[in-house]
Formats: sequence, structure tokens, C-alpha cells
Amino acid sequence: MRRILLTIEFHGGSFFGWQRQGAARTVQSTLEEAVRDLVGHEATMHSSGRTDRGVHALAMAAHVDLDSRLDPASIMMALNARLPQDCKVRRAQEVDPRFHARFDALSKLYRYSFVLGRAPSPLLADRACHMPRPLDVSAMAHAARLLMGRHDFACFESSSDEAGDDDGLDITADRFGPAALASGHSAPPPWRKPRPRGSVRNLMALEVRRVGRLVQIEASADGFLRGMVRGIAGTLAQVGLGRQEPAWVLQVLASRDRRKAGANMPAEGLTLVRVVYPPEALKWPL
Amino acid sequence: MRRILLTIEFHGGSFFGWQRQGAARTVQSTLEEAVRDLVGHEATMHSSGRTDRGVHALAMAAHVDLDSRLDPASIMMALNARLPQDCKVRRAQEVDPRFHARFDALSKLYRYSFVLGRAPSPLLADRACHMPRPLDVSAMAHAARLLMGRHDFACFESSSDEAGDDDGLDITADRFGPAALASGHSAPPPWRKPRPRGSVRNLMALEVRRVGRLVQIEASADGFLRGMVRGIAGTLAQVGLGRQEPAWVLQVLASRDRRKAGANMPAEGLTLVRVVYPPEALKWPL
Repeated sequence: MRRILLTIEFHGGSFFGWQRQGAARTVQSTLEEAVRDLVGHEATMHSSGRTDRGVHALAMAAHVDLDSRLDPASIMMALNARLPQDCKVRRAQEVDPRFHARFDALSKLYRYSFVLGRAPSPLLADRACHMPRPLDVSAMAHAARLLMGRHDFACFESSSDEAGDDDGLDITADRFGPAALASGHSAPPPWRKPRPRGSVRNLMALEVRRVGRLVQIEASADGFLRGMVRGIAGTLAQVGLGRQEPAWVLQVLASRDRRKAGANMPAEGLTLVRVVYPPEALKWPL
Repeated sequence: MRRILLTIEFHGGSFFGWQRQGAARTVQSTLEEAVRDLVGHEATMHSSGRTDRGVHALAMAAHVDLDSRLDPASIMMALNARLPQDCKVRRAQEVDPRFHARFDALSKLYRYSFVLGRAPSPLLADRACHMPRPLDVSAMAHAARLLMGRHDFACFESSSDEAGDDDGLDITADRFGPAALASGHSAPPPWRKPRPRGSVRNLMALEVRRVGRLVQIEASADGFLRGMVRGIAGTLAQVGLGRQEPAWVLQVLASRDRRKAGANMPAEGLTLVRVVYPPEALKWPL
């Protein structure tokens, strides 16, 4: 078996999110079918995290163990020949068998896009959330700077019965904890960093910019809670619309109360742009 | 009756082009239905030109005569409430009853987009033509400069039995010719400029640029022949792929032979970006 890391672009519009769930069309099940068709055995895709129904990805990362002699470029081409138009592999690379797409992710970058204008935009309708009223980008940028850094982001965490785009960190935090290790799991590889726990995350960048008729929010963090980016987008939109002052976001943050933040913005505006790994985790073959 | 100029954005993917044709879903028939539903009478949309099946528009221009007291902004909102997601009015303005969206267009800007990369792009698949091999953008830009200016572009004109994105100038050229005027047509308004004839057009700008993984060609001219932009894109692609030297495009141009040029590129890569009118034609009310 070889461990292959795939970089995947998908249009979220006609998928019920990343995670396999029964007969629903999901990105994971679509990829697993293509892999099974190629290598003739079942193989599970392990992603860097889950994305919600309708959310897009420019570069989702996922690893899979294959029994195949094809070189990675040929694996990419062969999978793409089997994949539908709305989901394609942009890169395949062989990684250490101890590499894990979820446990080794150092950070992720998400982009949320609003399209401004009194009329909705047919050419951007499936890629950005329509905002018919003007947004004050500098007020939003001011509020965004207040949210940056290491905080408890519980105020942006969606309830567990909602579909989410969380990265499942709380589940995985125990994967290499004392209990797991005692029960026979192997030691983590040398490149693996400690994972964030609970609802504390390090929001390393949060930028707001105007690009033509788009207003884009880019968020980079060591992990995201379920619904976090869409909650931040909804909260910054309240500031952009002039309904709240920038400093209000500090009250929201301090409250740790989901009901205090702005509503989650719709899925079509959200895109996973990048997943970052420690360079040493990708050095394979050594 | 009032003459209203509409600026229309549409996603070409599920339209059989602009022009009404029987029961097919076209942009023109979709707009005319919305207008009829709003004002209660039949009204014909006169566009700046036709676009082919699958071609997109950021700002198609079309005028229509309405019996309505609504102000233009309300007309826009009321039409958008009746229009599907893939076709919306971005602007409505009242114009002189002698204004004509086709006869008065001074120039148009089209953009053709290639998306590079070994894998097709799910997020750009319906908006750009996938080019799996690298393109030499500077060679393409060199060739593009040779095509600029006033030339006979017959080499890029698609045969008349193909669907086209022509602006119908040859049809309209006679609209205010001596014969038409003698048969009772009124004199043209003062802002109307002489129209190009035959297959001679003035290609005022032809730019090639790299934007991320896109290579975009922007063409601005006083009019376009049927299939002209897609033929130029296919011809520049031959240069970008290294199959022809830049100077080859001069031979193509001189040949006036469609078979000498590159193949027409697919419709999904083409977008009508702008239609320009003389400022004095849009001064209404005076």
C-alpha cells in the first residue's frame, strides 16, 4: 500500500458536502468510487476536514492508501478520467505512510465572497452571496483586525445538529492522547504538531478586500469550528451594513454565545482555498 | 411608449443563444416574457447583437419600447423579480425614442478565457475553456498586436449556417441606406455614426494576459463578424502552443480564408463584457 495525498478542486453546488452519508452524492463518496474503479479495492479518503453542503474547494487535501504501481501523475490523470466535471484532482503526490491529511494540517485558508449590486449576478450566483446593499469595507476590515489572534471562538460555532464545515479537531485531539496511545496506537510522527482543543483557535489572518463588485473575506487559522467562517462573514456583514460598530465584534467574541453573532452566511459564498502542511511531512520519498 | 435601454447579465450555459427561435430557451425570449408579464403587452427586445449558444454576457445592451409609468429602477427590479437566476437586468435607463441598441453601438468588448492546468477546473469549467498544455502568453500578445487595426477579417468569419455571435452589421447597414430612406424610413438621429460594411472591422484593442491560472484575450472592435472572437482565440492559441510563429497570423489575415485560421474555440470561454454608445445618444431626458 502507498499513501497518496490528493489536492482536489470541486464545485460544491451539487454535492451534499464532503462527508460520505448513505446514498447522497458527496465529494468523498464520488472520489472513493473513482479510486475503487481504478485500483479494484475499497479505499477510504481521509480529508483535512469536512466541508458543508454547497461549499466549494479550490484545493481540498485528502489522503488515501492505494495498491497501485502507477506514478502519482498517472494516478491523477486516471482518476480525473473517472471523475465528473464538478470534482477533479489537481495534484497527486506520494507521502509517508504516517502522514495524515487531518492530523498534520497546520492551517487552512477559507474565502467568503459577497457580490454587490442591486441585481443578483447570474455569472457569480453559484460562487458568491448576493448583497444588494453597499458594504463598508474599511469598517469590516477594522472589525476583522479585532478578531485576529488566539481566541475562544465559541460564539461562531454552529450547533452540532447543523451540517458544518468544521475540521473535526475535537474528535482527532484524542487520537494521539494518552488513552489512545495506551490502547495500542503507534506514536505520532516527528512532524506532527499539537492540535488546538475545545473552541480556542488561532486566527492568523482575517482580511477584507474589495475586488471589482466582490467583497471577499479571507480567513486563515490553525483550525475552524463548525460554521466558523460563515458566522464570521455574517458578523462582519452586520458591521459592513452599518448595523453595528466594529468594536461590537469584541462583545460577540467575549459572549461565547452563538446567538450574539451575525447569522451564518449561505454556503455558495464559501471556498476552501488552501490547506498547509509542515514541509517535512511532505518530503517523500526521503 | 417609452424606450428603455437594458444592461443584461446572463450565464449562457442553459440558453440557446440570444436570438428568439421557436420554443427554444433563448435570452431574448426569456426577457420578452418577463416584459410581457410586467406591462401586459408584447414588446420586442432589440439587442446590440446576437450571442451564440453558451456564450455569456456581463453587460449585453438591448432596448425595448414599453407602455409603463414605472421609473427605470422600478422596471429593473420588477423584471428581475420575473427573471430566472441565470439572466438578470443590471441597469435600466430611459433613452431617446430614436436610440437603437444595434445601430448606435460604437464598439464592443469581448473576453475569451482559457484555464490552464493538467486537470480541468470544476470551479471554472462553465466559464473558461480548459487548455491542458502551457500557453506562451508573450508570443500570443505579439501575434495579437499584429491583428490590431482596421483589416478585412474574413478569415475569422464563420459560415452562415453555423450559429454565430455576430452583430448583424451587414443586415443593418442597409437600414439607413438610400433605398431604405426612400421607402419611408425616417432620417437617422444626429449621433448615429456610419457603420462598418462587409468584413472590414476596426480591432481597436486585442490584449492577452495571464491572471492566475487563466489566460484571457480581450478584443474591442467597432463590430464583430460571426465567430470572430472565437476564431481569433483559436488562432492565438496555435501561436501560444508553439505550433505557429506570431507572424503567421498575418498570412491568415491576408488569406481571407476561414480554413487557414485556428479552429473556433468553445462557447463557454466567451463573455460579452461591454457595449459602448456615443454619450450623446444616452442623454435622456434632455
